[in-house]
Amino acid sequence: MKSREVRLVSRPQGMPREEDFEVAEVDVAEPADGEVLIRNELMSVDPYMRGRMSDAKSYSAPFELGEPMHGGAVGRVIASRREELEEGDWVFSQLGWREVARSDGEGVRKIDADAAPPSTALGVLGMPGLTAYVGLLDIGELQEGDTVFVSGAAGAVGSVAGQIAKLKRCRVIGSAGSAEKVAWIEELGFDKAFDYHETSPREALRGEKLDVYFDNVGGDHLEAALGAAKTHARFVECGMISRYNATEPEPAPRNMQLIVTKQLRIQGFLVFEHFHRSRDFFRDMSGWVREAKVRYRETYVDGIENAPRAFIGLMEGDNIGKMLVRLNAS
Amino acid sequence: MKSREVRLVSRPQGMPREEDFEVAEVDVAEPADGEVLIRNELMSVDPYMRGRMSDAKSYSAPFELGEPMHGGAVGRVIASRREELEEGDWVFSQLGWREVARSDGEGVRKIDADAAPPSTALGVLGMPGLTAYVGLLDIGELQEGDTVFVSGAAGAVGSVAGQIAKLKRCRVIGSAGSAEKVAWIEELGFDKAFDYHETSPREALRGEKLDVYFDNVGGDHLEAALGAAKTHARFVECGMISRYNATEPEPAPRNMQLIVTKQLRIQGFLVFEHFHRSRDFFRDMSGWVREAKVRYRETYVDGIENAPRAFIGLMEGDNIGKMLVRLNAS
Repeated sequence: MKSREVRLVSRPQGMPREEDFEVAEVDVAEPADGEVLIRNELMSVDPYMRGRMSDAKSYSAPFELGEPMHGGAVGRVIASRREELEEGDWVFSQLGWREVARSDGEGVRKIDADAAPPSTALGVLGMPGLTAYVGLLDIGELQEGDTVFVSGAAGAVGSVAGQIAKLKRCRVIGSAGSAEKVAWIEELGFDKAFDYHETSPREALRGEKLDVYFDNVGGDHLEAALGAAKTHARFVECGMISRYNATEPEPAPRNMQLIVTKQLRIQGFLVFEHFHRSRDFFRDMSGWVREAKVRYRETYVDGIENAPRAFIGLMEGDNIGKMLVRLNAS
Repeated sequence: MKSREVRLVSRPQGMPREEDFEVAEVDVAEPADGEVLIRNELMSVDPYMRGRMSDAKSYSAPFELGEPMHGGAVGRVIASRREELEEGDWVFSQLGWREVARSDGEGVRKIDADAAPPSTALGVLGMPGLTAYVGLLDIGELQEGDTVFVSGAAGAVGSVAGQIAKLKRCRVIGSAGSAEKVAWIEELGFDKAFDYHETSPREALRGEKLDVYFDNVGGDHLEAALGAAKTHARFVECGMISRYNATEPEPAPRNMQLIVTKQLRIQGFLVFEHFHRSRDFFRDMSGWVREAKVRYRETYVDGIENAPRAFIGLMEGDNIGKMLVRLNAS
């Protein structure tokens, strides 16, 4: 069977370019005993993938040059020689960046397409949603009534984090990169929202007293949050997208000494050390989504040949909510 | 009775200058009922005082211009109309920066000059010692066998922090600002010590894997520690002396994204929220000092007229161990 897959062919310097990737046609063999064939319907592009495109030592192995990349995807079983999977089943796997995947079942999980659209397994009910949940509740130790600042608040993680904070009766401030994004997070109930291309985070946070900062951006956002933090504020360091494609060091934050004088706690985390919270998360979040207490948006790019472009678009902020690539849009 | 006191007369811009202070002669009245007169023998200069010389909003009120400053001091009661204090008693108070203090007893605490030299109440058995103890054990959650980096390791806090870590069977690396200081901390048992004027922290930490960073310096030291940190390392943010007199932003740390990928915890603290640990601290530390398991040094400047110079010298790293001003050296 023919399939196409995306390979990394050169390690990006700064912002990735389409030439750093190639889309190759491959033959996929019939499943052997214990194997399954999956036709992916949707694949995820996520900011963390930028780290794997570099060969700097990090928490996970880099993508190999010339090999297909991988990441979250949902699709349907098209052939199965595994007991627990049947043709037609919707499944989640880490076998993204390809149209058809052959698997021995490792990391393949059935999803209930009747309970929620399968795409949500890559977003609000998947890894980005869990990241927001664990980050805010466990790492940030969110308390009712806190003032919370979420940067990158129109993204897949930030938009959920902000809504959880609203559910917990917090005052929530969000930053985003366009007027349209700002309008959306206002619609979600954020108490204050600003376009950081128009208003600096420092200006936008003037007069605010933050209990929690949920950081997806770093840089000037982090500096502004240090300035606006209350004594004993908690900083949830989820990501620093402003740095992922930077080729030069930046002279910020310049007010690091406030960590001492305000007795701040700055805590980095990676969601994959928190999968033990998946059950609690899924129970709470699927309820909130069903009752429309947490809402989500998805931005689609069609065709695997456009997956590199979708990833670059994610880095450039083209998405509102979760960025997804539809692999069988025709 | 005549006394002299040191007043702040202008708020320093950058490094304080002697002209920012004045030494004034004053008359001290006889103690009223319930009051006590103390002749200070030693006063402390501490890095935290730099913050109070500025009028930026901070955790404590700034020193008032034209008023005497205050801070830790030890002295002897020379007249008492308080029940619990007698002439000749050694006492600790916050009434430093003056030769003779009149007090209603608030914050005045008797010290046992037979058990330990009174100067230790300002250093290893006082606030700097407690800072090291709480910072390393409570904030840093030190574990036996950890690799610990202490910056400013020849100072009153750093030298104690490093020795506590050695007592807990840790590998300890220390930075200091001169060859003499490096020689001293090597003598104290540090496994590695370097002069940061000769070797950059980044170079000195090459190949090290830190569990705990006890930060007294910030800036390039913090950047280097981020680079050398293990996953889940704890950063004890005790001070950032490199920043206290800075007038320009500095371009470090430039690797803040490592907080996320290494899941670091960066925790600022101020010792005065941890006085509930004073009893445990005093029990442990007085034992360690008695058994010479923790050693200390003191650097003296003589005469209250030289107290501003002593403070400036502290900022410039003139001291080994605790910096003290002897008020009755004659």
